Amino acid sequence: MSLIVTGTIGIDTVYTPQGHREKVLGGSCTYFAAAASFHGPVRVVAAVGEDFPDSFRATLARFGGIDASGIEVRRGSKTFAWGGKYLGNMNSRETLFTELGVLAERPPAMPAAFRDSRTVFLANTHPAVQLQMLEGLPKRALAVADTMDLWINTARAELDLLLTRIDGLVLNYDEAELLTGKANTVAAARHVLRMGPRFVVVKKGEHGCILVHRDGIAALPAYPTEEVVDPTGAGDTFAGGMMGYLANHKGDAQSVATLREAIAHGTIMASFNIESFSLERLTTLTRAELDKRYREFAAMVRV
Amino acid sequence: MSLIVTGTIGIDTVYTPQGHREKVLGGSCTYFAAAASFHGPVRVVAAVGEDFPDSFRATLARFGGIDASGIEVRRGSKTFAWGGKYLGNMNSRETLFTELGVLAERPPAMPAAFRDSRTVFLANTHPAVQLQMLEGLPKRALAVADTMDLWINTARAELDLLLTRIDGLVLNYDEAELLTGKANTVAAARHVLRMGPRFVVVKKGEHGCILVHRDGIAALPAYPTEEVVDPTGAGDTFAGGMMGYLANHKGDAQSVATLREAIAHGTIMASFNIESFSLERLTTLTRAELDKRYREFAAMVRV
Repeated sequence: MSLIVTGTIGIDTVYTPQGHREKVLGGSCTYFAAAASFHGPVRVVAAVGEDFPDSFRATLARFGGIDASGIEVRRGSKTFAWGGKYLGNMNSRETLFTELGVLAERPPAMPAAFRDSRTVFLANTHPAVQLQMLEGLPKRALAVADTMDLWINTARAELDLLLTRIDGLVLNYDEAELLTGKANTVAAARHVLRMGPRFVVVKKGEHGCILVHRDGIAALPAYPTEEVVDPTGAGDTFAGGMMGYLANHKGDAQSVATLREAIAHGTIMASFNIESFSLERLTTLTRAELDKRYREFAAMVRV
Repeated sequence: MSLIVTGTIGIDTVYTPQGHREKVLGGSCTYFAAAASFHGPVRVVAAVGEDFPDSFRATLARFGGIDASGIEVRRGSKTFAWGGKYLGNMNSRETLFTELGVLAERPPAMPAAFRDSRTVFLANTHPAVQLQMLEGLPKRALAVADTMDLWINTARAELDLLLTRIDGLVLNYDEAELLTGKANTVAAARHVLRMGPRFVVVKKGEHGCILVHRDGIAALPAYPTEEVVDPTGAGDTFAGGMMGYLANHKGDAQSVATLREAIAHGTIMASFNIESFSLERLTTLTRAELDKRYREFAAMVRV
């Protein structure tokens, strides 16, 4: 089923204990699309400024399956820029700067050619924008959204409305608690199900993820990684691996069994992404490497 | 292979957000033995005071497979007593009181009839005592120990020596970091392997566990539990389920494949234990319930 992602494309500056990169390609859409492209084609809807480098466009083109025709270039505007620094074992980070640029303007337009998209991922952005994007996709059969603490705290009404219109929600461990007031992950996820979605995927970083679905539960550890270079994009590549698998799966994409496979694909994709900065690792990643690690992971969790 | 556990038997007073119990049966040996007894016989070596209630002895006897002949009753001494309070989502606890009693005296004697034990679990206690217990078990084929932050901080030389004499170490997430100075779990576990053991099981509570073995890695989530009543004994029942499985397994108990099954059995046992206070849940637990949840868990993590 045709996959589409809406969200941000950014220019990132990242410091981690393993090194740093200045002004590299980032953003939720970018990471998601690169990851999803390993499973099949993916359409991208986002806005950038006229400062968006040709080299970044070339990087996206290297992934083959990415349809970048929905990336709107705004004359006189600047691309979203973000700087962050990861601390200690990289479970926490501080934001160094945020330059909203095009994100402070109107949302990107939905290209007419994309309106027939069937599988939708609304990457993290203001829930009002996510709702607007959803309205531009009347043929959707599966819609999944990500969100964050900022919107839970500042745009709760829009987020609550969004939750009634999507099939699945992907969010972090601490965000699930913030959204529901429940510290237990399973209890928090069940609370979210009562707010609308059919399933919730709670991401716990190095501790893996839990799928809580109306029909059952699945849980997976993270792929055990000894050296994390840069966690930026882990959640978005997880979602890209997951949604890419779902969009190209034959059969019921919303069953527990299919979603369980999908979160395993997300786990493996994220494990590669954090091995280097920006998209450096994904640009060299091969299908054979993905398949090998997927089999290795399956053996690690076999009971 | 004949299984033996050495460690503590205690009288616990526990407060959790779900309720409290005063002066109930506790201790690392107790939880371990109750859990292991579901897989086969288990010998217990520990000391109690003359205040140890007959009713607690009767509770242990209900588990059938527990050989309590190695429980030494000390006239004029008191049983170890501990009081603790769990906070918030029960990831942290404060100690209300500790009355060492017999733990401040000489270690329990190793009964001559137990010296032929083949599978050994040294539950958490001073590493010098663990070393002494190990010396009393010359026929051991598999020795696994637990430890804690107190001994890492105060008895490091004895602990380092212990690590050269055991096959496996079981410890908590934060203790692995404390022992090795490495915040990454896999890196910390690999560091421990260089200190002696052939394998390390890092317990992460609600986030599951990781087995790092010279020959490979396995990782499992915790069984997703919506309501935790009392986490006391989770680590010991995990170890009991794991070691009970290993002691009764035909074939190589130290292979990655066998240990992977063993940590799954530990995971399931711990998931039942935390459903109630003290041994309340394990005393009513049936083999059929265990098998059902094991199959359910296997399906949850199937990739």
